Amino acid sequence: MNERASTAGWWLGFDIGGTRTKTGVVSDDGTVGHARAEETTHETFELVWERMLAYADQAIARDGREGLRGAGVAAPGLVDPGFGVRNLPGKVPGIEDFPLRERLEQYLGVPVRCINDGAAATLAEWRFGAARGYEDVVGLTIGTGIGSGAIIGGRALATRNLAGGVSFGHATIRTGGRTCLCGNVGCAETLVSANAVVGRMRDYVARKVPSTITDAYERDPGRITFQTLVEGVDAGDDVADEIMRHFCRDLGATIVTAIHAYDPEVVVLAGGPMAQADHFLPQVQAYVDRYAFRYPKERIIPILRAERSDHAGVLGAVARVMQTVADASPVS
Amino acid sequence: MNERASTAGWWLGFDIGGTRTKTGVVSDDGTVGHARAEETTHETFELVWERMLAYADQAIARDGREGLRGAGVAAPGLVDPGFGVRNLPGKVPGIEDFPLRERLEQYLGVPVRCINDGAAATLAEWRFGAARGYEDVVGLTIGTGIGSGAIIGGRALATRNLAGGVSFGHATIRTGGRTCLCGNVGCAETLVSANAVVGRMRDYVARKVPSTITDAYERDPGRITFQTLVEGVDAGDDVADEIMRHFCRDLGATIVTAIHAYDPEVVVLAGGPMAQADHFLPQVQAYVDRYAFRYPKERIIPILRAERSDHAGVLGAVARVMQTVADASPVS
Amino acid sequence: MNERASTAGWWLGFDIGGTRTKTGVVSDDGTVGHARAEETTHETFELVWERMLAYADQAIARDGREGLRGAGVAAPGLVDPGFGVRNLPGKVPGIEDFPLRERLEQYLGVPVRCINDGAAATLAEWRFGAARGYEDVVGLTIGTGIGSGAIIGGRALATRNLAGGVSFGHATIRTGGRTCLCGNVGCAETLVSANAVVGRMRDYVARKVPSTITDAYERDPGRITFQTLVEGVDAGDDVADEIMRHFCRDLGATIVTAIHAYDPEVVVLAGGPMAQADHFLPQVQAYVDRYAFRYPKERIIPILRAERSDHAGVLGAVARVMQTVADASPVS
Amino acid sequence: MNERASTAGWWLGFDIGGTRTKTGVVSDDGTVGHARAEETTHETFELVWERMLAYADQAIARDGREGLRGAGVAAPGLVDPGFGVRNLPGKVPGIEDFPLRERLEQYLGVPVRCINDGAAATLAEWRFGAARGYEDVVGLTIGTGIGSGAIIGGRALATRNLAGGVSFGHATIRTGGRTCLCGNVGCAETLVSANAVVGRMRDYVARKVPSTITDAYERDPGRITFQTLVEGVDAGDDVADEIMRHFCRDLGATIVTAIHAYDPEVVVLAGGPMAQADHFLPQVQAYVDRYAFRYPKERIIPILRAERSDHAGVLGAVARVMQTVADASPVS
Repeated sequence: MNERASTAGWWLGFDIGGTRTKTGVVSDDGTVGHARAEETTHETFELVWERMLAYADQAIARDGREGLRGAGVAAPGLVDPGFGVRNLPGKVPGIEDFPLRERLEQYLGVPVRCINDGAAATLAEWRFGAARGYEDVVGLTIGTGIGSGAIIGGRALATRNLAGGVSFGHATIRTGGRTCLCGNVGCAETLVSANAVVGRMRDYVARKVPSTITDAYERDPGRITFQTLVEGVDAGDDVADEIMRHFCRDLGATIVTAIHAYDPEVVVLAGGPMAQADHFLPQVQAYVDRYAFRYPKERIIPILRAERSDHAGVLGAVARVMQTVADASPVS
Repeated sequence: MNERASTAGWWLGFDIGGTRTKTGVVSDDGTVGHARAEETTHETFELVWERMLAYADQAIARDGREGLRGAGVAAPGLVDPGFGVRNLPGKVPGIEDFPLRERLEQYLGVPVRCINDGAAATLAEWRFGAARGYEDVVGLTIGTGIGSGAIIGGRALATRNLAGGVSFGHATIRTGGRTCLCGNVGCAETLVSANAVVGRMRDYVARKVPSTITDAYERDPGRITFQTLVEGVDAGDDVADEIMRHFCRDLGATIVTAIHAYDPEVVVLAGGPMAQADHFLPQVQAYVDRYAFRYPKERIIPILRAERSDHAGVLGAVARVMQTVADASPVS
Repeated sequence: MNERASTAGWWLGFDIGGTRTKTGVVSDDGTVGHARAEETTHETFELVWERMLAYADQAIARDGREGLRGAGVAAPGLVDPGFGVRNLPGKVPGIEDFPLRERLEQYLGVPVRCINDGAAATLAEWRFGAARGYEDVVGLTIGTGIGSGAIIGGRALATRNLAGGVSFGHATIRTGGRTCLCGNVGCAETLVSANAVVGRMRDYVARKVPSTITDAYERDPGRITFQTLVEGVDAGDDVADEIMRHFCRDLGATIVTAIHAYDPEVVVLAGGPMAQADHFLPQVQAYVDRYAFRYPKERIIPILRAERSDHAGVLGAVARVMQTVADASPVS
Repeated sequence: MNERASTAGWWLGFDIGGTRTKTGVVSDDGTVGHARAEETTHETFELVWERMLAYADQAIARDGREGLRGAGVAAPGLVDPGFGVRNLPGKVPGIEDFPLRERLEQYLGVPVRCINDGAAATLAEWRFGAARGYEDVVGLTIGTGIGSGAIIGGRALATRNLAGGVSFGHATIRTGGRTCLCGNVGCAETLVSANAVVGRMRDYVARKVPSTITDAYERDPGRITFQTLVEGVDAGDDVADEIMRHFCRDLGATIVTAIHAYDPEVVVLAGGPMAQADHFLPQVQAYVDRYAFRYPKERIIPILRAERSDHAGVLGAVARVMQTVADASPVS
């Protein structure tokens, strides 16, 4: 079962989210086939589990059992690689008690590993995407909140209490700032998540501050997004410009803090706002170049754009189990 | 034309706003009769002027010309008592060039004076409402923005450049804070206007922070008001509680700053949130008691609830012209 | 006793401070003669009073009683023009109970008025200095704290509770900021007094942040002044530059707030840092030009440098009594 | 050379600082003997190196070469365990080019490893002190700055660029805050280092805010320390109380951020202020209990007091080489 020797191998990847479950068949080089995304909002895990097995059955029928090397499962919350999800309040009822790894190994007959979805996104970039070839990597996903993952020495940071690297969205970046949904104040998530930016825009709209953002809201209240901000900046709008400058500064501070915590060689950013990365990434890189400690001083710590966001969870979960399989292989 | 001697006198009051024009007939003791409010949004001043004359004609036909003592006109912006509105960008096209006082005096044959609406609201309380009997008064109106007026020695503060006491909503209370619609940052208006409070609530909603406010938004996005905040506080909601505490602190700081600027004997608050004053006025009074300089130290500077908000502009405009008439009278 | 007619008149001015008492003989045009400053730290007012009378005796013996038109007394704290000092905790024991105006009128036989020293400084500039010819003036003195005075319509703002215009150093400019010696947080005094600037510099020194300020401290711990800051800015020091930028922004915000409160035609600045005004006044003027409301929009509200700081209290006290004398004169 | 079997073994520890070099002989159980601390301020590394060899010669002469198991060297800056110090600007001239590990191994004939001093302090607590028995540990030292170290799975976090876990003092805890000596703003070091606290106190003193701290300064300007703050709190001083509350909040936020980054089982605090830990540790623990994510929710993440601060560098350096020796041993 030596990884390098298995020329025709394939892997199963599952990415269980609060609203959707994604699945895919992954080749050794990270090519994703037969990708599927199903709405599973409010579904109990029992139903999700049945869908997973049905997908696996189809894949095995199609590609043949003998090539299947392993399976990986990504999920939000605190994930125990050798067990399953340990803590995921509310989102997928029933998943917390389920010995996912054991049951899936029994069903498939190959190694299975589980992983937090933020860690998976980072591992996906490290093995198949923007961060290939590095050993120390931090990944941040700018979404409704901030997802995170840290790779040290080519492995996802693993701690006894399962939260290593995956809670960085709740690093305090601004004491005395805004209250976060976690109850604390000043979390990175309150400053640089897509929702935080929208919140700031809505504050201006509510105060009727003249701005392209207020104009956009009056045209369509449901369409205030990061894109609205970028359009405002492009149009020379002062309010948009100010919100963008704060976003760049605070994202810069978040990344600098991640660098000072984890000392990565590169940082990978994913998430919706990255579609407009040209509008802020240069400023953020400049901030990081100015303030992040590193050695030697001339070294740049590049902030890279994620390349595998479409299948981040599926690929990261597979990358995780690939590592286990490689570890278990006799050195060739 | 001695004010005290005129037992059966009556006065005309006009309150021109950006969206409505209010009119009323006022007796010497501040009783308002025949009050009317007409939607005049997007109307040119020419049309408003015609409505004003028509209202005056009706009133004179009804009450008799001989008792008419004078007329007052309140309007937003920078108002020259002896001329009319000097500066009111955009809201009522044509009003800025119009010699309101002169033309109305010609038409009515009695003294006319004009006044800023924030100053009028304060003068209304001083002559007919909560601040009767005081000489030095500050009035603040908590609305979409913050209106203000200052009375020193029983007269509306009057300065050459016409803005004395009426721009206090743009006092900087928090340097480095949020951008105001005026372009500056940290204005009182960005912190303690009704819109500012709603803006803060909408920020939390956009970030999906669990709260009774988010719940209320999901039931009806259009109903996020100061009332929503108060209901959240009553329900023990943490987010509502935090927003309310900031509101109290910042309103306290705004009032303390007004006290340190104008040294009033009392402060009068008006505006929509005052309907829920029981939920914040005690905290604000305590803040003021703690931090406002005054002499002697034991003296309390009461924060009073406005009593004449329904007719603030009409009454304040009349109070302004009453003063002119009294000044012109031979001392009895 | 018509002011304009009195060609050979002269006036007595007294400026009682916490550490020094200044005296001077003032001509109608504001020329100060025989100026004296005596250390009176920890002296009871009884001793100060004896010194005042002795000075008056000498002046009368020298210049002749017949030309003496009046006398003015400036003092810190809450001052009642027609009585004396009503509230001045601790600084000059005994001054609070003393009917200064009555006793000095009895002794001199001419009109006497008292005035707060911040108001005096402003009145001195209005009558004899930088603000001549204006009617609405705000004066700020940047010292250990912030002194202030407001002139409306050519008169020092006068309120029943005696604090009109003289407490502006405790306007809240930054809610949630640093605690002031008055117990409140974020007062103008905590941001833009000379002591506040020195406090910020000492904070950097204590944290050993590399800077020309730290270097200056190591050469001589007692010599950290506003001058040190200016030298740092000139030398291109980053820390000095940052402190100066905050000083300019916060002084700008303080002045904008004063403008929005009092609507002056000009603002006059006095105090030690004004010796280096070239290093910050242009930036502060630019801030005010950008953010202060005024009409018409093109109008500049100039921030002027005080011209009579050497004798501010003496001259302002005399200006105050001159006004009283002029008021009492039959119109010529 | 199995670690557990070596009953009579001993180890050499060196702790090279900017001002002092500490040395000690360490037994397998962490007992330190013959500890020495020498002033080496402004000394080149050549001289320090000679002192190190002289100390080693004495120890070997005394305890016998056969029992010597290894030697560890702690130093500030970026340290390469298998080489020596890679980056330490200014403090010890010549140390950056020196192959410390290789030369010391040649001289002593036993394994040598080097380690950053913050990491060493953490490792000392993990192996010999408060954090014994845990696998995931964060250590913070509150000194002139903030030192830090992270242990994951029983090993000091090791990254390619050598800064893993040792730069956490420059995590941004407050964007837009005070400038740090590193040039960035809002670093943990600007808020919760002993120097930061003293800076805040000196700011109050310079502004002459009445306080026990100002009193203490006037008695002796050189004696404003963390102890002064604690005495103020004990005396009920408002200013001291406020500074202490901010210190507790910001230290809590720093620790919560460290927990969200590293997911430790325990946090160990060292440094001068810990002598007064009773005055702030309960509040900081309460903050962490309230805001730190962990699983299960009931789990407490204890903040422990360092027990081996006296020999932190010496012991941590020895702990580091012990691990190398153990790794190289055949499993017993």
